[in-house]
Parts: sequence; C-alpha cells; structure tokens
Amino acid sequence: MPRTAETASFQFNHTMIRVKDPKVSLKFYTEVIGMDLLSEKDMGDFTLYFLAFDHGQNYKSMSAEDKDIARFAREGVLELTHNHGTESDASFTGYSSGNSEPGKGFGHIAITVDNLEVACARFEKLGVPFKKRPQDGKMRNIAFILDPDGYWVEVVKQAMKL
Amino acid sequence: MPRTAETASFQFNHTMIRVKDPKVSLKFYTEVIGMDLLSEKDMGDFTLYFLAFDHGQNYKSMSAEDKDIARFAREGVLELTHNHGTESDASFTGYSSGNSEPGKGFGHIAITVDNLEVACARFEKLGVPFKKRPQDGKMRNIAFILDPDGYWVEVVKQAMKL
Repeated sequence: MPRTAETASFQFNHTMIRVKDPKVSLKFYTEVIGMDLLSEKDMGDFTLYFLAFDHGQNYKSMSAEDKDIARFAREGVLELTHNHGTESDASFTGYSSGNSEPGKGFGHIAITVDNLEVACARFEKLGVPFKKRPQDGKMRNIAFILDPDGYWVEVVKQAMKL
Repeated sequence: MPRTAETASFQFNHTMIRVKDPKVSLKFYTEVIGMDLLSEKDMGDFTLYFLAFDHGQNYKSMSAEDKDIARFAREGVLELTHNHGTESDASFTGYSSGNSEPGKGFGHIAITVDNLEVACARFEKLGVPFKKRPQDGKMRNIAFILDPDGYWVEVVKQAMKL
C-alpha cells in the first residue's frame, strides 16, 4: 500500500550523472553492465541518454518512439548527460565521483546480481577497474567497480523476491 | 529480453546520496515524496537508510527483517548515508549537489507522477523549494524541487505503461 493517495502514483524513475565521453560510457553501461539504450536526445549543447535493464519489457521489439515513452513508465532508469566537447577537450579535468572533497555528496549507484562471484569474475575478465573486490575489507558481500568517469558502481547480491 | 544471459539477472537497485540530517531527510523522502523506510543500518560512524515506493510490496505488513531483505529485490531504491555528527557540526558546510563546480558530476534523481500540476501544487503547499517550476523556462513538462541537502529532484509526468 502506498503511504498516501497523493503519492500513490509516484515512482523513482531515474538517476542522472554527467559523462565525459558517451561512446565510452554507452559501451560500458550496455556491454559490461547490460542495460539497453532507450532514448537519445540531442538538446543542442548536450545530449541525454536513457538506459535501463530489460526485464521483460522487450525493448528490442519496440519502436524508437515507444522506447522513448517507455523510459518514463518504470523505475531503475539511468540518465547520462553529455555536454558536447568534453570528450575531446584537453583542459577538461573530468567529473567528480562525489566521494571526496571538493564535491562530496553523491555516493554511488548499485547493481544487484544473482551471483556476485561470477559477476565480478566477468568484470575482471572485461578489464573493469575495481574500487573494492568482494575479498577486500570487511564486507565480503559487496564490490565496487568504477565506471569510465570514475563513478562508483556497487555490485551486490540480489535478494530473492519475498 | 535481456541483452545477454550473463547480465540477465542484473537490476539497477539503488542510488546513494549523503545527507546532513537524517531526521530532516527522512521526513522529506517519506512524508513529502512518499517513500517507505525499508531499512536502517547503524554502521558505527555512519548510518544507512534505504527507502523505496510501495507499489504493492505491502511493506507495512512485512517484518523489519523481511523489509531489510526486500530492499535488494527491486529497482528504485534510494540509500541515504548519514555520517554521524554532521547534523550538529557548525563547521560542516553541507554536501555538493553535483550541479556546479567544484564537484560537478552527479545531476539529480527523478520522480514520475501521474499529474504534474497536482504534484507541484502539493509541493508548494508543503513549502518545498523549487529550482524550476513547470512554467519556468522552455520545458513545461518538468519541474525540479530541492531536497533538504539541496540535491535536485526532477518531477516529471509518468508515461502510461506500454
């Protein structure tokens, strides 16, 4: 039951992070992480990319127009913002991960996986940098990998649906 | 269909942001936004709070233990990290929203709502600060409100399920 009728329709639709080079980030979030690209919006000075996991939505069978609408009909969407030019600007020093000063605030996004060991072995094989492997530190049931901009991506075992 | 068998189980489970005062943030994310608090974990120097919208999960009828497990069985979870002491530390200058230098990177989280005008009228009534009202600027179909730490929360009309 939703808390109140007023918020009954609300969904936590997406999280937006800025990326330096969309080619590199899209390759990471589609090929390594496994999301589908639902929408790409050129806004002039910047382009927005919306990605999400396909859990039966069958994005591959949808038209571009339907996918564009569908991105606002679910939770778990990732929005990447590319400010044009950063990918080739030698003076651009990169974005803050949010995990150290200056700029501390945002922490990470997290992906649940059915098998943490298998998922991490695959990330290793694909050459993904780790911030923390499962065996590092005290918390053995989580890992942190780094996306191409240095944002932290937690990897954690998913719970069975209750 | 998922992109590959290797990532078929993956879900975009949560997004983590740091908050100065959990009392204030929990009030905002539960009473104003309408999420349920699923889990609270005291880790010594910091406490983690996990929140999500109840879309039929019936969290109110679950035990604390089941809710704690259930937070890893879905998408659309928000994790708030409270580093103990920030709420009463006069020298603490607050967290970065990620939207200006130094610390630019993270952008926002976004909530979809069935009726943008009604949702925004309610936010106004509750005294929530706006970064952008629907009628400001060119994009009439979105608003941005500010959470207690100044993080941007986009409010956008949800699509009908396709």
